[in-house]
Amino acid sequence: MTGPRGLFVAFEGGDGAGKTTQQRLLAEHLRAEGCDDVLVTREPGDSRIGPQVRAIVLDGGELDPRAEALLFAADRADHVAHLIRPALDRGAIVLVDRYIDSSIAYQGEGRGLGRDQIAALSQFATQGLLPDLTVVLDLDEEARRERMERQGSADRIEREPGHVHERVRRAFLDLAAAAPERYLVVDAARPPQDVAADIAVAVARARPVQRNGKVVRS
Amino acid sequence: MTGPRGLFVAFEGGDGAGKTTQQRLLAEHLRAEGCDDVLVTREPGDSRIGPQVRAIVLDGGELDPRAEALLFAADRADHVAHLIRPALDRGAIVLVDRYIDSSIAYQGEGRGLGRDQIAALSQFATQGLLPDLTVVLDLDEEARRERMERQGSADRIEREPGHVHERVRRAFLDLAAAAPERYLVVDAARPPQDVAADIAVAVARARPVQRNGKVVRS
Repeated sequence: MTGPRGLFVAFEGGDGAGKTTQQRLLAEHLRAEGCDDVLVTREPGDSRIGPQVRAIVLDGGELDPRAEALLFAADRADHVAHLIRPALDRGAIVLVDRYIDSSIAYQGEGRGLGRDQIAALSQFATQGLLPDLTVVLDLDEEARRERMERQGSADRIEREPGHVHERVRRAFLDLAAAAPERYLVVDAARPPQDVAADIAVAVARARPVQRNGKVVRS
Repeated sequence: MTGPRGLFVAFEGGDGAGKTTQQRLLAEHLRAEGCDDVLVTREPGDSRIGPQVRAIVLDGGELDPRAEALLFAADRADHVAHLIRPALDRGAIVLVDRYIDSSIAYQGEGRGLGRDQIAALSQFATQGLLPDLTVVLDLDEEARRERMERQGSADRIEREPGHVHERVRRAFLDLAAAAPERYLVVDAARPPQDVAADIAVAVARARPVQRNGKVVRS
């Protein structure tokens, strides 16, 4: 199997950090720049089995943490096999809201299942497909609480106490620090347009360019 | 965590080998002998998330094989956490129709995902809980075909071609050969009552006995 040719960007970070907004702003920016094949997708839920998996995970009551982690991995396997990898193979820019790092942070660290164990599940699920760029939208605890209250609703995972969120946040930052060439960490408490501008710059650097009909890294 | 006290028996083997029948006959035998806490259960499907997982896996069309393996593991994690382990902890005899070996045989070998990889998923899902006794109901290809045709219906997995079934069968036999003290391999082409008699003897040997109010292995 040859490696994928497109560009793969993941948005990571705690709830309320603005992942969905920034994903949308980047897609608009890329389309305005003439990219006509931008796939906007999310986990869990945008795989073909995703709606069912999402329903079990988000509303499943006292779901066993290992079952939860395996369901997220199953959703990811289907998502990569049927949506992300075909899109990258045809040269698309894929923007995913949550990917492997969310599992490592929430299940590995937040639920105490072990970061390495959860990373191994995703390695199996994705056959090792990593994003070209992971954007970590970082929000400290005070800013997070303020946003969550403003937004009103909270599902099962969002209702975790603050100290869990702090450990989850730390996991995202650790992952970024371990491979800085593949990460952009931004302060998500800033105005959305400022955050979007930083992300656009990082993506422009990472974006593959067309040369002699062949997609290569710039 | 202390080890479970009950007795855990798994029924494995290809489709049409008589697992459900033998599980029922053993449950009836045990109850007739005075065991009042016998749990009859199956995978996939008897976990709390099982009906949903079973629906995805058995009717999911072209489901990615890794997603399928992870769904089976998620079902198993929930099954062990909420049904099997609590039952063993209270001293029950648990009879499960399919467990880890089915995943290793069908996904690891049959779908070519690798026996070790699939064993690792189940190790994660179950925290290493193995059956005290695994009964492999072994049926050669000719006997299998004859039974399948007689029974009429076939779901997605049962429609695999014969050479896949032969590899799956080999995987079950290899697993049994690697740990004979935890396995009973029986020729499932024999009359059901004869098979049931052999199983009852093996379970009697494996069954824990009550001594001074404490459950110990006989």
